[in-house]
Amino acid sequence: MADEKTKVMRMAAPKKKILFVVMDGLGDRGCKALGGKTPLEHTSTPNLDWFAANGSSGIMDIIAPGVGPGSDTAHLSLLGYDPHKVYTGRGPFEAAGIGLIGKRGDVAFRCNFSTVNDKFDVVDRRAGRVKSPETTELIKALSGIVIDGIEVLVKEGTEHRAALLLRGKGLDPDVTDTDPHDVAKVLTSKGRTKGAELTASVVNKFVRLSYEKMKDHPVNVERRKKGLPEANILLTRGAGSFPDILPFTEKNKMSAACVAGVGMIKGICGICGLDVIDVPNECTGGLDTNMIKKADTALNALKKYDFVLMNVKAPDLSGHDGKAEEKCSTIKKLDEMAGHLRKNLTNDVVIAFTADHCTPCEIGDHTGDPVPLTVYTESIVSDAAVKFSESGCAVGRIGRIRGHDLLQICLDLANRSEKFGA
Amino acid sequence: MADEKTKVMRMAAPKKKILFVVMDGLGDRGCKALGGKTPLEHTSTPNLDWFAANGSSGIMDIIAPGVGPGSDTAHLSLLGYDPHKVYTGRGPFEAAGIGLIGKRGDVAFRCNFSTVNDKFDVVDRRAGRVKSPETTELIKALSGIVIDGIEVLVKEGTEHRAALLLRGKGLDPDVTDTDPHDVAKVLTSKGRTKGAELTASVVNKFVRLSYEKMKDHPVNVERRKKGLPEANILLTRGAGSFPDILPFTEKNKMSAACVAGVGMIKGICGICGLDVIDVPNECTGGLDTNMIKKADTALNALKKYDFVLMNVKAPDLSGHDGKAEEKCSTIKKLDEMAGHLRKNLTNDVVIAFTADHCTPCEIGDHTGDPVPLTVYTESIVSDAAVKFSESGCAVGRIGRIRGHDLLQICLDLANRSEKFGA
Repeated sequence: MADEKTKVMRMAAPKKKILFVVMDGLGDRGCKALGGKTPLEHTSTPNLDWFAANGSSGIMDIIAPGVGPGSDTAHLSLLGYDPHKVYTGRGPFEAAGIGLIGKRGDVAFRCNFSTVNDKFDVVDRRAGRVKSPETTELIKALSGIVIDGIEVLVKEGTEHRAALLLRGKGLDPDVTDTDPHDVAKVLTSKGRTKGAELTASVVNKFVRLSYEKMKDHPVNVERRKKGLPEANILLTRGAGSFPDILPFTEKNKMSAACVAGVGMIKGICGICGLDVIDVPNECTGGLDTNMIKKADTALNALKKYDFVLMNVKAPDLSGHDGKAEEKCSTIKKLDEMAGHLRKNLTNDVVIAFTADHCTPCEIGDHTGDPVPLTVYTESIVSDAAVKFSESGCAVGRIGRIRGHDLLQICLDLANRSEKFGA
Repeated sequence: MADEKTKVMRMAAPKKKILFVVMDGLGDRGCKALGGKTPLEHTSTPNLDWFAANGSSGIMDIIAPGVGPGSDTAHLSLLGYDPHKVYTGRGPFEAAGIGLIGKRGDVAFRCNFSTVNDKFDVVDRRAGRVKSPETTELIKALSGIVIDGIEVLVKEGTEHRAALLLRGKGLDPDVTDTDPHDVAKVLTSKGRTKGAELTASVVNKFVRLSYEKMKDHPVNVERRKKGLPEANILLTRGAGSFPDILPFTEKNKMSAACVAGVGMIKGICGICGLDVIDVPNECTGGLDTNMIKKADTALNALKKYDFVLMNVKAPDLSGHDGKAEEKCSTIKKLDEMAGHLRKNLTNDVVIAFTADHCTPCEIGDHTGDPVPLTVYTESIVSDAAVKFSESGCAVGRIGRIRGHDLLQICLDLANRSEKFGA
């Protein structure tokens, strides 16, 4: 990018707002169950197609051609960041995903509640898939801990998962896991470099302390009674530093919010400085989610914010479960949501329909296939695309772009970009 | 790029010449006045369409997707340079634009003729929009100045504008403006770093000297009599070093010239080492320009030069003025020019029709939308594109490329590229 001296703000045209509709895992490959078509190709989607026919379409490599992104790196890219620079490992992003949003220099870990015997052999890595409210109770026993001057924050996640965040001077994420990733002895964390020895030592003391504080906790007394594996230790893995991310709002000079049901997406957006908007209870992040309510939440948010990222998780679930027909049903609901947006959008909005990655039903996981993309706003140049799908969008004039290009393109369409030169 | 050892010149095929027809600001968005079409889509352009139908087409991000370029950075990119590396700010490029083409190490500034009172309060930043021949007379009083061993060159531009170029040892562009950009006291230039203090000092002495030499100049005596604001000082802003650009001719091993009516384009091409060809008076750089004469000038230049860049400014003017119908009329004339080129081109030429950026009529300024592109030469592979427009070119086989790719593509089609490897 140009430096400040060579940039000139475009002032004349009125600024528009921007709405990203990220349909999680929407892209797919041909499915035998659908006669070789993708779920999008197979399903009638008159509303999404209206946007394709009247907007500009293309396909998008979220990271790079053939690189399958996680939802975390994908959303970083969609928000205009280079995940190769700001994605510092799963620890900080999972921590953020469950609401433990750290700051630069903090080191975060993914944790499991596990079951160990008194010789520190792991008996059950997931403590019988213990979950809240038990984990919530257990975590309370670990609040307010300080070890060797390092502040310790812990928070429970879904099921047996949790996150640990260390805050203080001299921390370094280059430490090994205490989780043996198997039924084996708890490992001693080691610093891979001299500078990481303090961190490793704090981690080892924390793991030991979690055992001391939880082994006879009422929750575990109760579990013992019921013959359930006790959640008597927290084991760490995936250490990473919180990245130094220039807040989205500052970087792009606009207010921004996210509307999402899934913790990880909220976490990513939170790390990037977006406001995280509470969604109604009907927006479950599951297949039964109420997409119209979610769309209304996004439309409402657009009254206050310049930029809104809305994530709908449902299509990803069917992809992971390998259920092509189910994904088609979800797509019908997505199309109704698109129709609702079409009816209620004001004409000062640039809207982009896309996905964060493909989750092909016959693969059951994320792939590096490009995702379909349609961008629409009043006065956009329309093109040859008439069907919103993996193949349909490919004939559009956007061509094939990268994930991080989308925001810049929308900023420009929203009359919010800066001119480089004179 | 490959290094010298791994490059092999292709010798067999005869070398062709290259003509870039840069239709300034041509690209647009849908216009309400044109029923939602762009001016190019709305206008019948049989000659441009002939090139699209018989050539290869695509769309081009001059800098990057969604980044709106200035005409300066855009032409650098079209000439195959990376503007992020060689664009050193407006001073040197504006200086070059009015014919003050410096060399590496020179520091250049944009200047205004302004009016100050004897307390150095700025009374009129533009000295009543004074212009040539008065500014030309005033500049003569500032010729041959040397300050502390630094050579001072000044030249008048359009209206109240001028450029200052400093040449000598120890110069550094990191200095603040003397122009207060407001009705306020003249500022003292300061070096932002220790190394820039000499430059700041020379600038301050020059500004003071410009006042001494101009305040009682006959031009100002006359203006005083007429009650007009006196052009009694030159105020500086936008300091920048002349970049170290490897001349185009050397870089691409071919002779090169530009045919343009606008000073800034001539300046850019001059900085890059192209010969700047005088255009006939009828080629005004305005709406009334004689495009056929300009095309003839380019065709003539092709007899002597291997590469010619021709810039036609007119479409940009209608874009900035927001006049969609006028832009359509200009496009009709551009199409007649394309017809004239088609009739008179020899078949040893690779011709590219494109724009340096979009200037949508409803925006009135440059945007980052991709520009249409058609490349034609005998034996080129033709494609699905049949209409030269923002949407029409998008279906072509060139796909979506960057501005700096175009030259390399044309060099290759002209049998002038070097093989990388064996």
